[in-house]
Amino acid sequence: MEHGGILTYTNLRTHFLDFSCNINPLGISSKSKTELINSISKLTLYPDIKYLNLKNEVAKYLNCKIEEVLLGNGAVEIIDNLCATFDRIIVCPPCFSEYELRAKIRNKDLLLLPQTKDFLIDVNLLIKNIKSGDLLILANPNNPTAKRLQKELLLDIYKIVHERNAFLLLDEAFFEFCPEDYDSIDIFKKYNFENICILRAATKFFALPGIRLGYACTSKRTVNCIEYFEQPWHINSFAEAAAKIIFNDTDFIFKSKQYIFEARDTFFKELKDNSKIGKIKFEPYTSDCNFILIKLLNATDKEAQDFLKKHNILVRTCSSFKTLSDNHIRIAVRSKEDNAKFIQALFE
Amino acid sequence: MEHGGILTYTNLRTHFLDFSCNINPLGISSKSKTELINSISKLTLYPDIKYLNLKNEVAKYLNCKIEEVLLGNGAVEIIDNLCATFDRIIVCPPCFSEYELRAKIRNKDLLLLPQTKDFLIDVNLLIKNIKSGDLLILANPNNPTAKRLQKELLLDIYKIVHERNAFLLLDEAFFEFCPEDYDSIDIFKKYNFENICILRAATKFFALPGIRLGYACTSKRTVNCIEYFEQPWHINSFAEAAAKIIFNDTDFIFKSKQYIFEARDTFFKELKDNSKIGKIKFEPYTSDCNFILIKLLNATDKEAQDFLKKHNILVRTCSSFKTLSDNHIRIAVRSKEDNAKFIQALFE
Repeated sequence: MEHGGILTYTNLRTHFLDFSCNINPLGISSKSKTELINSISKLTLYPDIKYLNLKNEVAKYLNCKIEEVLLGNGAVEIIDNLCATFDRIIVCPPCFSEYELRAKIRNKDLLLLPQTKDFLIDVNLLIKNIKSGDLLILANPNNPTAKRLQKELLLDIYKIVHERNAFLLLDEAFFEFCPEDYDSIDIFKKYNFENICILRAATKFFALPGIRLGYACTSKRTVNCIEYFEQPWHINSFAEAAAKIIFNDTDFIFKSKQYIFEARDTFFKELKDNSKIGKIKFEPYTSDCNFILIKLLNATDKEAQDFLKKHNILVRTCSSFKTLSDNHIRIAVRSKEDNAKFIQALFE
Repeated sequence: MEHGGILTYTNLRTHFLDFSCNINPLGISSKSKTELINSISKLTLYPDIKYLNLKNEVAKYLNCKIEEVLLGNGAVEIIDNLCATFDRIIVCPPCFSEYELRAKIRNKDLLLLPQTKDFLIDVNLLIKNIKSGDLLILANPNNPTAKRLQKELLLDIYKIVHERNAFLLLDEAFFEFCPEDYDSIDIFKKYNFENICILRAATKFFALPGIRLGYACTSKRTVNCIEYFEQPWHINSFAEAAAKIIFNDTDFIFKSKQYIFEARDTFFKELKDNSKIGKIKFEPYTSDCNFILIKLLNATDKEAQDFLKKHNILVRTCSSFKTLSDNHIRIAVRSKEDNAKFIQALFE
């Protein structure tokens, strides 16, 4: 399985609790639904080819300048376009498989710098290898490890990248699920986002994978360079419409964060407490966001997947993540009720 | 102006009759609206990464095999991906500006083979130039000339393309607005779509530019080759939902064709009858679809645009179309009432 949520296209959608897909369990707000219904009548118009209103909403939400905003038909489009403009792509597995795949498809040199055993970026390895023209792609928090970069480490890495005239793509698709320790956009604003692009999306936190809206903050120069490659009208009208609501829905944002923080802490504790007494023995890694990586102690990922499937639960096997062996699964933090069902399934 | 409908993103949307944009004036059917509203609750799921149901609907509508279907986030994505896989791109101006632009962005050699004075493809010029590895892009009917390729000419061109081991991208974005003389998909099915890709879209006839759905018929081999470049989840969920309705809505399809055929004939006759007696003198070219190219006799395109703007009418200037000088405008066939307003404006 190269991606989570992959089984959702069949009729399985209705029968399974999908823990393989890391989406905000609160779903779409009713405000957003109303706005989307209203926008249907506007589908007969082309989206704004410059996306001025959409960019303006993103800029307000991210607290950056409108000229620093880059949009994508999902986050992957921005990753792909960035890969197209560099000579070599550096990725640090285990991480989202699309980084490596886009580099290959764009016919780029690829360098893998594996993370340490504790899932940290190996700064010494980075110093030894990174050079001008490189695009380093890091996720913050990282998928599937759920680890957020410590602020000091992030600053160290940026310093190296900047000094070597390389470029850092920081994929923060799960940003809003993280502890509010720092905001990388605030940090790198004073550098005018030189040599860095901070990528986020409506997909996970705003529970809108179907709407395809990725967005990023980077320097004006990089915006101009990437927009040259973009296809006209690459963002659909519904994404334009949703942006008017989701980024201003402070109530939904606050409630979602609160809910996920609580649900994750409870779920993690329950997992930990029950990790050695069911049929499957395991060790959950601490998580900085809305999913949890689990090390299996007496089963392969495929065996655990099959076991849980019998209880109508889908999980993400992790063998396809480079450097992770076949003894890891990743599970989403879903609603408190669903998480309880997961725990229960371990003993059935 | 590189594209029609470009002014629609400002508040001008509500104040102007937009003849610069060639969309079915009957708009979206109520059936489609209902389906789109129902699909909003499914936005929290990723679209099917393989788009099996969507491809199945397209295959049924186009009357081809599901393995012969290629999908795009709008037709431009398919044009762009095809450009990426060939050495040289041949375009025959005047035509849609994106053909040339995508070739440049993909860093490809570009060959321009201008159309004849009567807006026909110059077959001798083609024979002299085309070679293995070339991608020839033709629109059928062509934008902005509104000319459909005669069946015999199309077969002649395909023969040349096939013999030279080149490739033909036939952009049929306006197919359903054309006379029902032949269907290129029926013709090239027996060749298993070898060396040809026939491109269509929900944008114009189904009045859904905002939903971004392009689709094409080509050989299985080409489908596999192009899908390698595609980004995952490049089509949004609303496009998936709309496809279930629009392609099966025979009533809407029949009514729209009927309406456009009548509206165009009346509009053309009115234009012709009034072409020499208003302030602006002109000559309309006959049209095979839902827009009309007009040659101005005593004004530039910019002057005509300004004149009509005073009457709240937007038209597409044509100077940006290579080989057309600044004395052409393109106008859409809109509703019968709107078309009457256009004629009236000529005399105000």
